[in-house]
Amino acid sequence: MKIDIEKRILEKNIMVAHTIRERLESSHTFAINLVSSPGSGKTSLVERIIDYLHGKVTLSVIVGDVQTDIDASRIRRHDVPALQIETEGGCHLNAAQIEGALGKIPSSRLLIIENVGNLVCPANYDLGEDAKVVIVSPTEGEDKPLKYPIMFANSQAIIINKIDLVPYLDVSIDEIEKNARSINPALVVFKTSCKTGEGIEEFCEWLCENVKAKALNKAHGS
Amino acid sequence: MKIDIEKRILEKNIMVAHTIRERLESSHTFAINLVSSPGSGKTSLVERIIDYLHGKVTLSVIVGDVQTDIDASRIRRHDVPALQIETEGGCHLNAAQIEGALGKIPSSRLLIIENVGNLVCPANYDLGEDAKVVIVSPTEGEDKPLKYPIMFANSQAIIINKIDLVPYLDVSIDEIEKNARSINPALVVFKTSCKTGEGIEEFCEWLCENVKAKALNKAHGS
Repeated sequence: MKIDIEKRILEKNIMVAHTIRERLESSHTFAINLVSSPGSGKTSLVERIIDYLHGKVTLSVIVGDVQTDIDASRIRRHDVPALQIETEGGCHLNAAQIEGALGKIPSSRLLIIENVGNLVCPANYDLGEDAKVVIVSPTEGEDKPLKYPIMFANSQAIIINKIDLVPYLDVSIDEIEKNARSINPALVVFKTSCKTGEGIEEFCEWLCENVKAKALNKAHGS
Repeated sequence: MKIDIEKRILEKNIMVAHTIRERLESSHTFAINLVSSPGSGKTSLVERIIDYLHGKVTLSVIVGDVQTDIDASRIRRHDVPALQIETEGGCHLNAAQIEGALGKIPSSRLLIIENVGNLVCPANYDLGEDAKVVIVSPTEGEDKPLKYPIMFANSQAIIINKIDLVPYLDVSIDEIEKNARSINPALVVFKTSCKTGEGIEEFCEWLCENVKAKALNKAHGS
């Protein structure tokens, strides 16, 4: 019974995600869905992206959290349209919430969706994005791709963030990358520090390429 | 419809948790449910507890993960009975899983349940424990208690772990504590580093007091 209901919810979600994908296709918007554990640095990364792309690419942001609008407030300070979805206990964003949000923010070349901090539940919910980007912090250890494989299998790119902390940890980022690739060999890998700025350019240039490709209707995944 | 099903699942879970609580009462077992984001250091903490309590308190461990038995293997190396529950996609442990596991491990004075790394879903599932202990790492930022309030409201103690990393972060552990107490003023607060061993004694002594009290049927919460 529970499984039937879940199956129906997921099927409905896929249908709404399909509608979103068509909408983003016609507006030539490249969309990423940022997923991670709580506190891996999603919002700091979004702030870095905004600063890097300022004047180059129009963007808007949808942020999901169980409670508070702390993240959207942080992002709005950078003069970018940001809409907060408070899930009120919900452990992931769903496509219907994104569809509703899209009517409230201006269309842009790049849409960043920052999901609820959770490595389990958001993995199964398609939000109509072009790419799921999973962020991990080396402080979380090397084994997270093995323990939460669905998230890594369903992502197109991985960002190993907070690399400035590696000297203080007994953790190898090569091992994180190896474990992630053992789940999904096609993952595009980035290594960043939002504190020092290292690796931000590489990730933003990847975004720019995809934004351009989407404008030509040749984005990643299409 | 979805809400009805969820309500029924939660009600059934409470009933099973009640049975577990009676069982642990009669065996004078003090049980904690360790909850946190992925990678906050739950397993390292369990290893530290085992080493500290060696020869003082008998203990057994139940570990939940979406996939892999990495954690139970780590714990078994310390000659402690450890049972791994692989949830296969499930985002939290439930009481029925714990009830099943209890039949497979020896009874002990202290039972440690290490939940799936997730700050959302495990908050609502009573496992029959005496105390939920939420672990946060300062690398996750200061705002997690505000963003995931149900977990902090439902916990009896908080461990701020990895305090050895604080010098390398723009984070105040006083602020984490303040935010946690704003959600739940009754939280018992511990600050630990599994790397240096700082604070482990204080937490283990709190466990010992509760183990003794439970033996006298006066444990926390009863």
